Amino acid sequence: MVAETLVKKLRSLIAPSAERQALTPRGLERLREQLHECAAGLGGEVSARTRAAKLAETYLGLNDEGRQQFLKLISLEFGPDPAKVAAAHEHYQAAVATPDQWKAEAALRAAMRSSRIRILTQFNAIPQGVKFLVDLRADLLRYREQDQSDKELAVLDRELESRLGAWFDVGFLELQRITWNSPAALLEKLIEYEAVHEIRSWADLKNRLDSDRRLYAFFHPRMPAEPLIFVEVALTDHLAGNVQALLDEHAPVFDHRKADTAIFYSISNTQVGLRGVSFGSFLLKRVIDDLKRDFPRLAQFATLSPMPGLAAWVRKNPDVLAEAGLGLNLEELSNGTWAADDKQARALRDGLLRVGARYLTQAKQGSQEAGPPFDPVSRFHLGNGARVERLNYLADSSPKGFRQSFGLMVNYLYDPDDIERNLEAFASDGTIAASAAVRRQARPGKA
Amino acid sequence: MVAETLVKKLRSLIAPSAERQALTPRGLERLREQLHECAAGLGGEVSARTRAAKLAETYLGLNDEGRQQFLKLISLEFGPDPAKVAAAHEHYQAAVATPDQWKAEAALRAAMRSSRIRILTQFNAIPQGVKFLVDLRADLLRYREQDQSDKELAVLDRELESRLGAWFDVGFLELQRITWNSPAALLEKLIEYEAVHEIRSWADLKNRLDSDRRLYAFFHPRMPAEPLIFVEVALTDHLAGNVQALLDEHAPVFDHRKADTAIFYSISNTQVGLRGVSFGSFLLKRVIDDLKRDFPRLAQFATLSPMPGLAAWVRKNPDVLAEAGLGLNLEELSNGTWAADDKQARALRDGLLRVGARYLTQAKQGSQEAGPPFDPVSRFHLGNGARVERLNYLADSSPKGFRQSFGLMVNYLYDPDDIERNLEAFASDGTIAASAAVRRQARPGKA
Amino acid sequence: MVAETLVKKLRSLIAPSAERQALTPRGLERLREQLHECAAGLGGEVSARTRAAKLAETYLGLNDEGRQQFLKLISLEFGPDPAKVAAAHEHYQAAVATPDQWKAEAALRAAMRSSRIRILTQFNAIPQGVKFLVDLRADLLRYREQDQSDKELAVLDRELESRLGAWFDVGFLELQRITWNSPAALLEKLIEYEAVHEIRSWADLKNRLDSDRRLYAFFHPRMPAEPLIFVEVALTDHLAGNVQALLDEHAPVFDHRKADTAIFYSISNTQVGLRGVSFGSFLLKRVIDDLKRDFPRLAQFATLSPMPGLAAWVRKNPDVLAEAGLGLNLEELSNGTWAADDKQARALRDGLLRVGARYLTQAKQGSQEAGPPFDPVSRFHLGNGARVERLNYLADSSPKGFRQSFGLMVNYLYDPDDIERNLEAFASDGTIAASAAVRRQARPGKA
Amino acid sequence: MVAETLVKKLRSLIAPSAERQALTPRGLERLREQLHECAAGLGGEVSARTRAAKLAETYLGLNDEGRQQFLKLISLEFGPDPAKVAAAHEHYQAAVATPDQWKAEAALRAAMRSSRIRILTQFNAIPQGVKFLVDLRADLLRYREQDQSDKELAVLDRELESRLGAWFDVGFLELQRITWNSPAALLEKLIEYEAVHEIRSWADLKNRLDSDRRLYAFFHPRMPAEPLIFVEVALTDHLAGNVQALLDEHAPVFDHRKADTAIFYSISNTQVGLRGVSFGSFLLKRVIDDLKRDFPRLAQFATLSPMPGLAAWVRKNPDVLAEAGLGLNLEELSNGTWAADDKQARALRDGLLRVGARYLTQAKQGSQEAGPPFDPVSRFHLGNGARVERLNYLADSSPKGFRQSFGLMVNYLYDPDDIERNLEAFASDGTIAASAAVRRQARPGKA
Repeated sequence: MVAETLVKKLRSLIAPSAERQALTPRGLERLREQLHECAAGLGGEVSARTRAAKLAETYLGLNDEGRQQFLKLISLEFGPDPAKVAAAHEHYQAAVATPDQWKAEAALRAAMRSSRIRILTQFNAIPQGVKFLVDLRADLLRYREQDQSDKELAVLDRELESRLGAWFDVGFLELQRITWNSPAALLEKLIEYEAVHEIRSWADLKNRLDSDRRLYAFFHPRMPAEPLIFVEVALTDHLAGNVQALLDEHAPVFDHRKADTAIFYSISNTQVGLRGVSFGSFLLKRVIDDLKRDFPRLAQFATLSPMPGLAAWVRKNPDVLAEAGLGLNLEELSNGTWAADDKQARALRDGLLRVGARYLTQAKQGSQEAGPPFDPVSRFHLGNGARVERLNYLADSSPKGFRQSFGLMVNYLYDPDDIERNLEAFASDGTIAASAAVRRQARPGKA
Repeated sequence: MVAETLVKKLRSLIAPSAERQALTPRGLERLREQLHECAAGLGGEVSARTRAAKLAETYLGLNDEGRQQFLKLISLEFGPDPAKVAAAHEHYQAAVATPDQWKAEAALRAAMRSSRIRILTQFNAIPQGVKFLVDLRADLLRYREQDQSDKELAVLDRELESRLGAWFDVGFLELQRITWNSPAALLEKLIEYEAVHEIRSWADLKNRLDSDRRLYAFFHPRMPAEPLIFVEVALTDHLAGNVQALLDEHAPVFDHRKADTAIFYSISNTQVGLRGVSFGSFLLKRVIDDLKRDFPRLAQFATLSPMPGLAAWVRKNPDVLAEAGLGLNLEELSNGTWAADDKQARALRDGLLRVGARYLTQAKQGSQEAGPPFDPVSRFHLGNGARVERLNYLADSSPKGFRQSFGLMVNYLYDPDDIERNLEAFASDGTIAASAAVRRQARPGKA
Repeated sequence: MVAETLVKKLRSLIAPSAERQALTPRGLERLREQLHECAAGLGGEVSARTRAAKLAETYLGLNDEGRQQFLKLISLEFGPDPAKVAAAHEHYQAAVATPDQWKAEAALRAAMRSSRIRILTQFNAIPQGVKFLVDLRADLLRYREQDQSDKELAVLDRELESRLGAWFDVGFLELQRITWNSPAALLEKLIEYEAVHEIRSWADLKNRLDSDRRLYAFFHPRMPAEPLIFVEVALTDHLAGNVQALLDEHAPVFDHRKADTAIFYSISNTQVGLRGVSFGSFLLKRVIDDLKRDFPRLAQFATLSPMPGLAAWVRKNPDVLAEAGLGLNLEELSNGTWAADDKQARALRDGLLRVGARYLTQAKQGSQEAGPPFDPVSRFHLGNGARVERLNYLADSSPKGFRQSFGLMVNYLYDPDDIERNLEAFASDGTIAASAAVRRQARPGKA
Repeated sequence: MVAETLVKKLRSLIAPSAERQALTPRGLERLREQLHECAAGLGGEVSARTRAAKLAETYLGLNDEGRQQFLKLISLEFGPDPAKVAAAHEHYQAAVATPDQWKAEAALRAAMRSSRIRILTQFNAIPQGVKFLVDLRADLLRYREQDQSDKELAVLDRELESRLGAWFDVGFLELQRITWNSPAALLEKLIEYEAVHEIRSWADLKNRLDSDRRLYAFFHPRMPAEPLIFVEVALTDHLAGNVQALLDEHAPVFDHRKADTAIFYSISNTQVGLRGVSFGSFLLKRVIDDLKRDFPRLAQFATLSPMPGLAAWVRKNPDVLAEAGLGLNLEELSNGTWAADDKQARALRDGLLRVGARYLTQAKQGSQEAGPPFDPVSRFHLGNGARVERLNYLADSSPKGFRQSFGLMVNYLYDPDDIERNLEAFASDGTIAASAAVRRQARPGKA
């Protein structure tokens, strides 16, 4: 009963944070009691379900401060008992290399088991319980970020991440193609979740679902109305180099039977609460398989990707502009007004491409040369075995496009013959695969 | 490709154990290599999938000895590093009661993490991977049972059980009603899996799916063709006391609109590999909810259950027969020939009911009075909050019925008003709830 | 093959009429030949299917003149043979009141059978063949309307109408509730087809599918993507009297659990080609049944309907304005500017309500008093057994609302206790059921 | 309400004919009244539905005599009015070759329209109304057969057949593949309906659904649980010549990926009430298309068919046995005992094949040489464009096989290149297509 009406409350309560309440001292005591009952697991499944529903309702009714207290209570009071851990550990170390080692290992593991996950798992039995936990983790991440000195939530976060990782194992995910025949409520979510190139209207969305496009998403069986990640694909006959052209609703529809190239032009993760649980590479693999089956003539799989970290990197390394022979400063390059002037646009071309090429082939997150690339999108695609194929000038002329990368975009190419080699080289020593053209653009002599 | 053909192999290879091969020394080396690659997680998802498929194929092609070697390899060589565990533990204990405790706990947990589960989890990405792992655990349990002195597989078993427990969380299970309109391939599985009262033919099965019956099962989204557990229900207007009457295909169909009682007369778990992962009580709860919605007039929910441990208990406590004034010995009672003689059957009635009542209200698994009941079915239903309601004489006159319980059966009653109280008393001090009538039958003076 | 690609052509060819061709004399000869082959039914189903696909393709490629020739060819050359009809008729009349009458009747019926329907029916075997025929009839109706002196297409139209009537028998239609979870492609059709109160945007549509609304449509199993007719319902606690209030996207959502009234505020037929095949009354009946099951507290079912013929009737009967004491003429009343002036709006109220009441209770299509009502919406609802319940002043303040009915709207009430009586009285002598209030408003003395 | 409970009654009442009642004189009067109300169509859809449900209930409650009276009432009293027909006919003939002809034709058609079909059509609105009408027609056919002198039901039968023909137009039928995953309730119907080679058990059925088999059926959207016609197909690598081999449950499963031949070994119509409405040839066409798509290597489509009329034809033409040099008489050949004696079986081979070949290539239904073949199965397949390909000796050694055709069976071959030519020759002058081998066997000199 409680559980059944919860769903509606869940939705309505989450939104208007104004109506959410603080946790009173009495409420805190009551909550502590409930959580201990919950951890003790008294009363069987029926009670557990009712209890979980009540706790969820309590949680949803709390303001952010109250929620933080709720989560800290779980984090602090429901961990393992250090004394028991010590005893089990002593026994384990003594048993190493004896036949008892394996039983002792299991016993130590048991002693480490906390009640935190038991409490959290009980929410899974309520309707939409999985979504509740994913959103709870989104809260958790937000609170941790807001107060980074506070270390108490970290342990709960890691346990929850680990459990969500088990639940959202790629083996459980379902690949679905989303079309103009999909439920409007689902399409509306795409509009909301699209993180790369904003969907401006239903007409824009319809264009992205036309016969020369594909849109795929991963779903979890217990969150059927929530895409976890989705990718937008254009079927073409060339390596697309301009995103505004791709998104132009008035452009003629390409005859998909003539397509030899699939361009992945947008990939969006949707659930903040699943940070650290990754399914992007698996999604691309599954989508490529699906496209190959439907379009046997497809010979080239590539992205048209943003370079979200370029401007930030230039800010950190201001010399690169001059080195590339560019007369404009970061500010000027970012506002994009120069692009309206054909002559100036032509003049800046080589320099900007050189800056972009250096960024993609050399910029690293830390100081080590073998470290991961500075660019997050680059980290993702190179980690999947793609290579930097081509830089595109004036490829995204939206304000955001100029602001983050001076209008530059990049194609990452997924060449089936090279994927394995690329990703092993990338994994072992950080080698960045790039086409000869890009490598040439990055060379000092070029400018 | 490998993965795609695997499904067929899986089915065909599992069956004919004669064709399965031993693991050669060279094969063992190759396997060790593959497992280390797998644990290292080199090469991204694509490689992982291919590797997992190959490993699964290898496993399925091995005979029992080879499979044991396979599993031991994982158990022994992919555990945590004791030295790293020791270091993390030292740090953890030092941090107790300081702000660093939580981070140190997470670090200790990380040090405990083994590669075993990483290896096993990769199988989840192959088609029917979940079923593969459930069947692999069934192997594991069998090997452990065959050689109980061997402790090396225990740790792998516990890790796998824990992961399966997370995956088969009740929140992920789907309750389905199974009817005569369900797929024949699914109904065939019921015939195969029914563990309490054998389904003798398709006509027998159809009778159990008639309008005065219900059959419910739990399914996991990734094993859609495999019921995990199912329960058979009869809708009647009385507390049913004879199972042959319930299963009589020629008995008239009861008008379900007049039903006020639901009798659960058979509950079967189907997946050996999920031992220790329990969903029975949750199933009953969901089924009762469903029945209430469909038949608001239902007022009584009870079982008609076997007493599978009675004869074994009598063998251990031979005096109970004489105490109950029974002149026949265990052998004679078990063959059931006495039941054909009306006079003798009448004469034995009170004594047998007394033995049954004592068994249900007093027989415990260990020596402690507060311990769990001797009878496994009793443990299940009392643990869910039911009470022992009525003993039924000559209730199961099949050979199996006489052999295990001299023809006796019992009704456990699920009374919504008492469930909570019952299961809390049962959980805290082992109190067995029983009706006044059964308590009276168990009393010494009765005989 | 031909048939498979036809579907796409169908869609693409129908639209750009500019590209459609005239029928050449040679083409006409070829067509005549094909039609005769088709009527002869030579060559079995396989040939028939191929032939039908070719004919459909020919038809879709023709311009309006060509299509008319196509249809006339069928109408003129494939009718029954008058000589054979005469012979069969003679035999039939001779057999009347003898045992041979029934066989002779069947023989006459056989002689009357034309090849026209045989030709048309063959299209049903091509993909989307039903939709093709429905659209073909829409052409037919248009051609007949354009040239009313032309009688040659009438006979084909009647035969096709009769066959479509058999195919679209209400027993074959499926009632579906349409929600925000329905396919976007389907919702888009609602936007296109809504004929009463234009759907202005996706947000407007979403509002009409909110939790206090219901939208139902009838579908035919062979035209699954095409709603045939749909009705929009608002759940409220009063007899709604203003359509702009109902359609206000910013109005708060009504708690549907408190609803005691269902307001049908828009009913749209979508397929021109199904004119004469009616399912409106059956739809209302099914929707009322469905609503009653979902909302047992609903006690009142009514419409909020336009009065599309009011202004036209006033034009024919200009005296009614003066008789009702109205100082403005038709033109002035139709532009609605008076409504902005509160004082004038108050002054006109009684008079306009009186005109509306007279219109609804007295205006007839022909000169006979027992004839059908002048208003088409009135004909529909009164024919279903509703009664004129209440006139609503300034109920539709859109330009269309003023133009057709000076802002007036009407509630028709479906009172289960009266429906039978109302529709029998209406059917037998044209009696219009109306509430006492409306009858009073219509009375001369009122003004 | 009435309508909802009808479904159950329908099923329960149809079966136990003992409980069905006679029609009393008072009941007949009441029925006449109801039918006239029904024909008048008073009271709208709601009333119509209620009335139809009541009439259906009345009908189902009647015994055969009562049902005949019911049907005759409709046949006799609800036909067209001969006087009105005469008037309309006169007008029509006068209008021939004038512009009024088409309107007059439509008017004559309207005058011919009877209320019978209106009455029958109303049943379509009740649940399972289509199935009700199909079963009603089965009654009708049975009554007509039982009393062939009685001509009164013929006209009703023709009108109903015509309406069912429109409703069961092939364009409305859905092809479904039936597998071991289909609902048990549906598979049970196959067991019941199989008319050629009895399905002996669920194991037999499962064998016919194995991976080297296919089973397809046509369904109507309004009778989703009732296959209308189904065909069983074996995938092999040769022209199968023995039906017991095909149906052997213990035979090894053929690897379907190696199949180049599809053998249609059983086709069953299921609905007696749809006699005259044919979908067999369309089914074969659709099935062949489907098989080609799934198994591109299939190169040969043939049947393994019974020759149900052979023994009957021999009885009519006793000389053929001697002419073929056969020493046994019809009786002896029919009981099949000779087949157990290898020597005798060898001796009879040529003669029996010769009789079979003459039968298939020469035996006609009437006396005309261009008339349809004597054998009903032959009529069907030759009418679809197949040719007689091969006779199979001792191909059906069941008692039925010997009784109807002395163990002979025949392969009809569907050769895509010849189908059109074959069926046109067959349609125009009755030419029977046969392979050279069969034609040779039929030649006099052969024996």
